Amino acid sequence: MAELGVGSASADPRDIWQHFCAAWPLFDGTASGYWLRSELIEVFGIDDSLIDEAHADQLYEQLVSVLATPEFRPRALFDSFGIEVLATTDDPLDSLADHAALAADSSFRGRVLPTFRPDAYLNAHAPGFAERVDRLIVEAGDGAHGYRGYLAALANRRRYFIEHGAISADHGVRTPLTLKLSDDEAERLFDSALRGGLSAAERDAFEGQMMYQMARMSVEDGLVMTLHPGSYRNHHEPSFARFGADTGHDIPFAVGYTEGLRPLLNDFGTAAGFHLVLFTLDETVFSRELAPLAGFYPSVFLGAPWWFLDAPDAMLRFRSAVTETAGFSRSAGFVDDTRAFCSIPARHDASRRVEASFLARLVAEHRISEARAAEVMVDLVDAAPRRVFKL
Amino acid sequence: MAELGVGSASADPRDIWQHFCAAWPLFDGTASGYWLRSELIEVFGIDDSLIDEAHADQLYEQLVSVLATPEFRPRALFDSFGIEVLATTDDPLDSLADHAALAADSSFRGRVLPTFRPDAYLNAHAPGFAERVDRLIVEAGDGAHGYRGYLAALANRRRYFIEHGAISADHGVRTPLTLKLSDDEAERLFDSALRGGLSAAERDAFEGQMMYQMARMSVEDGLVMTLHPGSYRNHHEPSFARFGADTGHDIPFAVGYTEGLRPLLNDFGTAAGFHLVLFTLDETVFSRELAPLAGFYPSVFLGAPWWFLDAPDAMLRFRSAVTETAGFSRSAGFVDDTRAFCSIPARHDASRRVEASFLARLVAEHRISEARAAEVMVDLVDAAPRRVFKL
Amino acid sequence: MAELGVGSASADPRDIWQHFCAAWPLFDGTASGYWLRSELIEVFGIDDSLIDEAHADQLYEQLVSVLATPEFRPRALFDSFGIEVLATTDDPLDSLADHAALAADSSFRGRVLPTFRPDAYLNAHAPGFAERVDRLIVEAGDGAHGYRGYLAALANRRRYFIEHGAISADHGVRTPLTLKLSDDEAERLFDSALRGGLSAAERDAFEGQMMYQMARMSVEDGLVMTLHPGSYRNHHEPSFARFGADTGHDIPFAVGYTEGLRPLLNDFGTAAGFHLVLFTLDETVFSRELAPLAGFYPSVFLGAPWWFLDAPDAMLRFRSAVTETAGFSRSAGFVDDTRAFCSIPARHDASRRVEASFLARLVAEHRISEARAAEVMVDLVDAAPRRVFKL
Repeated sequence: MAELGVGSASADPRDIWQHFCAAWPLFDGTASGYWLRSELIEVFGIDDSLIDEAHADQLYEQLVSVLATPEFRPRALFDSFGIEVLATTDDPLDSLADHAALAADSSFRGRVLPTFRPDAYLNAHAPGFAERVDRLIVEAGDGAHGYRGYLAALANRRRYFIEHGAISADHGVRTPLTLKLSDDEAERLFDSALRGGLSAAERDAFEGQMMYQMARMSVEDGLVMTLHPGSYRNHHEPSFARFGADTGHDIPFAVGYTEGLRPLLNDFGTAAGFHLVLFTLDETVFSRELAPLAGFYPSVFLGAPWWFLDAPDAMLRFRSAVTETAGFSRSAGFVDDTRAFCSIPARHDASRRVEASFLARLVAEHRISEARAAEVMVDLVDAAPRRVFKL
Repeated sequence: MAELGVGSASADPRDIWQHFCAAWPLFDGTASGYWLRSELIEVFGIDDSLIDEAHADQLYEQLVSVLATPEFRPRALFDSFGIEVLATTDDPLDSLADHAALAADSSFRGRVLPTFRPDAYLNAHAPGFAERVDRLIVEAGDGAHGYRGYLAALANRRRYFIEHGAISADHGVRTPLTLKLSDDEAERLFDSALRGGLSAAERDAFEGQMMYQMARMSVEDGLVMTLHPGSYRNHHEPSFARFGADTGHDIPFAVGYTEGLRPLLNDFGTAAGFHLVLFTLDETVFSRELAPLAGFYPSVFLGAPWWFLDAPDAMLRFRSAVTETAGFSRSAGFVDDTRAFCSIPARHDASRRVEASFLARLVAEHRISEARAAEVMVDLVDAAPRRVFKL
Repeated sequence: MAELGVGSASADPRDIWQHFCAAWPLFDGTASGYWLRSELIEVFGIDDSLIDEAHADQLYEQLVSVLATPEFRPRALFDSFGIEVLATTDDPLDSLADHAALAADSSFRGRVLPTFRPDAYLNAHAPGFAERVDRLIVEAGDGAHGYRGYLAALANRRRYFIEHGAISADHGVRTPLTLKLSDDEAERLFDSALRGGLSAAERDAFEGQMMYQMARMSVEDGLVMTLHPGSYRNHHEPSFARFGADTGHDIPFAVGYTEGLRPLLNDFGTAAGFHLVLFTLDETVFSRELAPLAGFYPSVFLGAPWWFLDAPDAMLRFRSAVTETAGFSRSAGFVDDTRAFCSIPARHDASRRVEASFLARLVAEHRISEARAAEVMVDLVDAAPRRVFKL
């Protein structure tokens, strides 16, 4: 919300909370507002009528006292939220020591899995790209230098992640472009990238070529490939300079999957066991591109409406746009991508209500039987994510 | 449906049917599922509760026995379906002998019309383009060679089609681009095309220039021009290599009509008697481009939601998107493009229900009177296609 | 409506009215139809059942007699419509004498404000561009020649408009492109533009650079900047040649705000007091670009659905698309852009009904309380336009 201001004057959490409570009206009708309200009521036991600026102090005290109870320790919440699997996204060179420790801890029975997230090693315009890649080749390579060593190191780290429980590789890319280049061309781009010499078009080509390579590796090692294109990152340079990445000014733009994904899908689209989950911030592609792609390619699954589209009306538009072409079986089911642990129940609850609402409409319109709708509902919530993410 | 697999192992129709019945749940919520279920129940008299995998054998026997009855002979179905006009799409060099025979057969009173479909003679990248064009010029030309002979041959075959009852020329093009080129430029592109020397951009330019020529001929000979752009044909090369065209992997992409159609519309958009019916697979153009174009140009009509968009929710989105700008009078009405004869009643039934549902909402919201809604409903179903397609 | 024909044979208003009444059925379901019917009934007191071709003569007499009454003098309507502020759009060199006279007239208490609309001085391909710019520099400059004199003259005229009550500067541009050029580059483009030497791309670059300058001036002088991109003006050349601009053949096309506005927003997006109201004819940008931009940049406000999108269903799509990301507080509220004085009540009434309908759905779905919905409703109609347009 723009009115919340970028950078609060005070770092005192009580002041921030006061400031936040004053801003409640700005959240009316927004996805964030629905989640936050649901979270306060359902998780923290706050009375709905107290959620306003006037009761900010009282709420603050209540939250502080609740957070100090044993029921609000992370593992207790993990249990009470009924979480079965939680996946983090991790740097390819991360030791995954925390994951190993948790997996070895017999007092914790949940699954917390790492996810291979190599964006910073594939985006040639990311700050520090060359140093990072050098370190990757040195630390994880097979002794080879240059492009060949780079590919080997990525494959090695994927294997390391799999050994630590990873089931997917996640890719935040600028566009859905994929490219199959000759080794020579790929090597030439790679060498240029290390010298910081790529144009904007070459940067996209290199990333597209690396998406092709990531798909090839996924076919080999079985990691589910998830793709998140179409966000103009760090749109406001002064905010980026002051606050860094992921500070609220990533803005979507129009992208094309049909032509962009063709090289990848031509070679791997029907590969046995390959799962490619496509996400988008451009909802025009739901009916035009994603549903037809998922309707044909056995590897392609429809990711849940994501980010700005992870909201009630947008989720209904998604279902309306894709179902008539791709049915329900090509959906990956709901996966929240929250960084707010306590919002997990609210987000799954919202998704389930919306899916149920969509199915209820089809039942009311005699387009699906009530019995089948009930089966589909359970499948979307439970079986689909297990099936698609190989859980 | 991706799960149905590409290429069944068995060619035994009973096995295929069994395989298909096992896949019923995948069709829930899809347009194909609605049509198939409606067809089995309404046309074949199957009980709804038997449509599942468990009753596959029983259904198979029932279908085989029903199909052997005289009521299921094509002409009997033509009558019982209440079809008045059925149009095929035909190669420009087709002799249309079957159409002539049927027209001469006094025992058949329906109208089965040929449609001039010259795609393979206009798309310079289609396999066999040069040979096909050579044959066209030799068999249907006026003795002239090259580009001039080509245009003459196309005009001649259009005339031949009209003599055999054709009322429209149908064009499946890559994009809505149209171009008015000088004769010299057009000739140069044509000569290059015959030598297989066109770049991708020149291929589009040649097709765009030929759409301009097709519109010019439609203005002269009165054939209704229908345009179907925006599908990436044969997206999956391995499937194309193995199974050929039209095997389920044509994927839509974003296209622009406003700039693309301008050359054609500047010269022919207000030409007396010219009818141009625009179809799309990119629903973003409904409100942005197609409705405004149809609102201004007397020649432009809105084609029914097509292919992936020929489904209940998508049809409602179409009406919602175009009506507030273009009203109802600029619609071409429903025309199914099925290759499944027995699905014709289901598809028209679906379309009529959706149109009625849209109008009912406007009545309920006091946006149109019930009396006018009833008139519009009949017009959309009956009068509009007759008027727009000059039937 | 295409059937109304371009250019009626008769200039007799009674004939035109007769012609128009015969066309009533074409307006069913359209925004124009809703406004016109509402206007006839609510403003002119016509009985709904008389609005048809058969009663055209009777209606004509009634309208003529009503229009002759004192209650239908412009100022009387201004009062009875409850208009508080009406803004015209004016040429930068307009003397604004009429505005001054009206402001000085103590018998009129409404506010009629000029709006700075410099399109014809910024679009280098507009006929007469060079002559117009020369005149601007001579009449309103500070003595400097060329680009510097041009900028000074524009700033001077903005100041003159502000002195005459203007609160905003309105920009109808081809695309949302903005550019920050060096003074040398800007000067070079400007000099080329005066000689008529700009390519299509350079014309866009020059306009984009001038949008950057207009934003800079808005930051300085406080005029609210409104942006209306995305219409292909004068699509049908023969109609333009015969009837001139604004004769019904401006057709929208796809545009991108995210990348286009970045240079402007990087420098001015968080500038204190700067208000940038974004309009669009491409509704795909509502959820993808405009809501995220308005959610981050304190200067960006969402303009009301405009032109083809200023209609009930389209307005509901707008609210559904933007609210879940940007809430209600980033909306500029409804501003009609009618050139038909008597349609003003109908247009505001339509907008209010639709906003209320959207809020009522959220209340029914327990997404907002009824009390808050009532507050939001008043804010959207009353406070938001005052706040955003600094009234």
